[in-house]
Amino acid sequence: MSASLKNDRLLRALLRQPVGVTPIWIMRQAGRYLPEYRATRERAGSFMNLCRTPELACEVTLQPLRRFSLDAAILFSDILTIPDAMGLGLYFVEGEGPRFEHPVRNRSDIHALGVPDPENELRYVTDALRLIRHELDGAVPLIGFSGSPWTLASYMVEGRSSKEFTRIRSLLYEDPGTLHDLLDLLAEAVTRYLNAQILAGAQAVMIFDTWGGMLTSGAYLEFSLYYMQKVVEELIRESEGRRVPVTLFTKGGGQWLEAIARTGCDAIGLDWTTDISEARQRVGEKVALQGNLDPAVLYASPEKIVREAHKILAAFGAGPGHVFNLGHGIHPGIDPSHVAALVDAVHQVRKDA
Amino acid sequence: MSASLKNDRLLRALLRQPVGVTPIWIMRQAGRYLPEYRATRERAGSFMNLCRTPELACEVTLQPLRRFSLDAAILFSDILTIPDAMGLGLYFVEGEGPRFEHPVRNRSDIHALGVPDPENELRYVTDALRLIRHELDGAVPLIGFSGSPWTLASYMVEGRSSKEFTRIRSLLYEDPGTLHDLLDLLAEAVTRYLNAQILAGAQAVMIFDTWGGMLTSGAYLEFSLYYMQKVVEELIRESEGRRVPVTLFTKGGGQWLEAIARTGCDAIGLDWTTDISEARQRVGEKVALQGNLDPAVLYASPEKIVREAHKILAAFGAGPGHVFNLGHGIHPGIDPSHVAALVDAVHQVRKDA
Repeated sequence: MSASLKNDRLLRALLRQPVGVTPIWIMRQAGRYLPEYRATRERAGSFMNLCRTPELACEVTLQPLRRFSLDAAILFSDILTIPDAMGLGLYFVEGEGPRFEHPVRNRSDIHALGVPDPENELRYVTDALRLIRHELDGAVPLIGFSGSPWTLASYMVEGRSSKEFTRIRSLLYEDPGTLHDLLDLLAEAVTRYLNAQILAGAQAVMIFDTWGGMLTSGAYLEFSLYYMQKVVEELIRESEGRRVPVTLFTKGGGQWLEAIARTGCDAIGLDWTTDISEARQRVGEKVALQGNLDPAVLYASPEKIVREAHKILAAFGAGPGHVFNLGHGIHPGIDPSHVAALVDAVHQVRKDA
Repeated sequence: MSASLKNDRLLRALLRQPVGVTPIWIMRQAGRYLPEYRATRERAGSFMNLCRTPELACEVTLQPLRRFSLDAAILFSDILTIPDAMGLGLYFVEGEGPRFEHPVRNRSDIHALGVPDPENELRYVTDALRLIRHELDGAVPLIGFSGSPWTLASYMVEGRSSKEFTRIRSLLYEDPGTLHDLLDLLAEAVTRYLNAQILAGAQAVMIFDTWGGMLTSGAYLEFSLYYMQKVVEELIRESEGRRVPVTLFTKGGGQWLEAIARTGCDAIGLDWTTDISEARQRVGEKVALQGNLDPAVLYASPEKIVREAHKILAAFGAGPGHVFNLGHGIHPGIDPSHVAALVDAVHQVRKDA
């Protein structure tokens, strides 16, 4: 597992070290836009079976790397494994996203929850990571991830995805103490989970804060960012003799980049609405930036994709600290050949140090 | 119609003139959270019948003013009346939002569209405004509104509300020229529509850009804000001897306030994610600000509502130029007595000039 990396561009860029070309990976790169993914998903029977079977999770993790010269693999899993391991009963309704059989709705539900042991209830995740590392054989780094405490709490209280997330936003104003108890517990669970992922071979980790963007500025700092910072502070930051970079991604968080940069994270993931050139001016030398091509660009012709990719590279400009990515997950309807065009376009531009 | 206003706080605040207390109105103040609205809506048979019958539209416009000491009435209508008048066939599916029978999907669909005559195809709107003005009898000002060109185009191309609005975002990258043709036409239609509303008695107007926030910074400036500015430049700005203030509201537009402030609008509507104190620092003396209580606060107890309302007032601070509102439309599940608590809380605070 300590074999040296053949391609360490991702790790270097996340730490703002010089790289010859900008590394690229794609959020949801293992996913429904790939026919081989759909075949494996079919074989697994259900999405959760796919996540829970290390051989299958490993297989779909590696699929995009066989097609495209991506600079990283990312564990195939779901952001909601932690609440599932807490006993909430995660399941998926086709075309409607995740749901919980047992949402938490009040103080006693919340106080009955415990922190899962990652090497027990979430063993399928660490097993998958070990297997993927073995199969990767040092080709590219492997990224581990978790949902943010706030995002986990949003689904746990609401019971499902929602346009408004009314229940948790009501709880926030009506009984903030109870919500803080839940977030405290989740921060501990996320910390343990990500540290177990690092010990199992994750060489970088990312925290997805899918729903932080629904909050007021004040509430974002108090209920989302504060708990991400707690996690960042407790993460194992060096493993196998290298620094393990941590990236925070808040969808809709473009207004709060300065605050995110102060958490001690190594990099910020940007959604596509933020101008990456302005973002860089705002965060200065503090952190690297990951992003942020509009995922809808991939519907356009390869020629347009190349042009838009070059715009992002030019907007970031010279100097270290850029990991290319989409500003959100790739859409299921994208033609894989368009992804190839994107990856090649990014790699064709020589990066000035 | 030229009767002087008994309460002109709204107009004064929008023009950054001193007021004794901060005026307040509430987005979707005429709506499903009111039992009397639900009764009238039932009587109308369909949502579009309610919009298209001036007597009923007038009735629901006035309902919230009978309950709460609001500082403005806003025309009851839908943001999609223009594309409906263009022949796209607007209809509503219960719980799923607006849809069009005939979405526009290609260059020839788009080039076949014409600009509706507001005093003909949209006569029901101007008739409603005249009736409401008569009934208001100068009690408070009447606000007219329209969807923004970008927001109208989003629904027209997509055919319905959507999580991703993939079709229009693809069109934007693949064939921007055709999209610009559509937006040009819509800017002209919105201008004519709002000017007709002003001539029919609207004393302030607001443009709702519900979907501008899904764009990249560059695309927002080019495809949304540019066309709102075109509208602003062509609006009738004085009527009945008073300035007619125009407010621009882009949901998710907190990153672009400086640019919005440069369009020549009088005020910016803020969604709840933006800190109003920071917003004020960013736009300076250029424009007034409208907003921006998190609509979810209204689920909390009256005591908490009062506290959060006072926080917004304090965050805006002393000096003119604040119109209190929610950061988005009121949710249908809110208890009307909570709205009363909010309105009273805002009016209880004496405003330093």
